[in-house]
Amino acid sequence: MSQPEQTITPPTTVSDDTLRRFLGYHMKRAFNVVQADLVATLKPFELRMLTYTALVLICDNPGLSQAQLAAAMDVERPNIVVIVDELERRELINRTRVPTDRRAYALVPTLQGRRLCGQAVAAVETHEAKLFAGLNGDMRSEMIAILSKVRGA
Amino acid sequence: MSQPEQTITPPTTVSDDTLRRFLGYHMKRAFNVVQADLVATLKPFELRMLTYTALVLICDNPGLSQAQLAAAMDVERPNIVVIVDELERRELINRTRVPTDRRAYALVPTLQGRRLCGQAVAAVETHEAKLFAGLNGDMRSEMIAILSKVRGA
Repeated sequence: MSQPEQTITPPTTVSDDTLRRFLGYHMKRAFNVVQADLVATLKPFELRMLTYTALVLICDNPGLSQAQLAAAMDVERPNIVVIVDELERRELINRTRVPTDRRAYALVPTLQGRRLCGQAVAAVETHEAKLFAGLNGDMRSEMIAILSKVRGA
Repeated sequence: MSQPEQTITPPTTVSDDTLRRFLGYHMKRAFNVVQADLVATLKPFELRMLTYTALVLICDNPGLSQAQLAAAMDVERPNIVVIVDELERRELINRTRVPTDRRAYALVPTLQGRRLCGQAVAAVETHEAKLFAGLNGDMRSEMIAILSKVRGA
C-alpha cells in the first residue's frame, strides 16, 4: 500500500523554545552577532579573526614561539602555520631563529605590524563600545566572570 | 648592509591581556569549551551541531518550510539543503509538498526522528548540567538576559 501524500500547512511562526532552554544556544546566537560585526570591523585591515588574534598576541609577546602561539590560541599546529605565513607574507611579523632551539621559530612584529595592530585594536574597541552599548559596567563584569567560570579559567 | 640575525628569547608565559579587554574574546573562548563538549555529546547520535539544531526545530515545528528553517538557524539556503538532505537520508525527517506553494517543501519528523531528537535533547541537558554546574540559577538567568541583549532579541 503506498503512503498517501500528506498535505501539511507550514506554521506561521517558528518556535525555538526547546533550544532556548540551553545556555549554549544563547551563547552561540549572541556570538554570531558579535562575530559578524567583528569580521566587518577587521576587513579594512585585511585581517580575519584568527590573523587579528595572532597579530595581537605577537605584538604583546614579541619572541613567542609558534608552539606558544598555537597553545594560546587553542589552534592546531598546521593551522597556526597558515596564519603565521599570512602575517609574514604581509610583512607584519618576522620569523626569527631561537638560539636555544634550532627547530623553533620566535615570532616578532615588524614596525608595520605594530602599527596595523594598534589601528585594528582601536577599531575593535569602537566595535565593542557600539555592540555592547546596552550593557552597563556591572553587566559587563558579571558576564566576564560567568564566561571565565564556564571556561574553567 | 644585511640585517643581523636577531636572537630572541621566547617569553616564559604568554599574556593575552589586550584580548581580555574584549567581551567578544571571552565569549569566543567560553563557547569553544561548550562546543567541544557538545560535539562529543552529539557524536553517539551521529549528529553535528547543525543537524541537531535542525532536527530539534523540525520536531518542535512540524511542517515548517526549508526557508523558515534557514531563517530560524540563520544559515544560508545552500547550507540548509545539505543539512536537510542528511536528515532525510537518515530517515529522521520527510520532505512533503506544501499544497499552497508547489515549489516549497514542508519538513516533518519521522517517528524515528522524534525518538532520536528526544534522546539527543536529554543528552544535551546532561552536558549542560555538567558544564554549567558552577553557575547558580541567578547567574544563569543573568547570563541569558545579557546574551539576549547582545543579540538584540
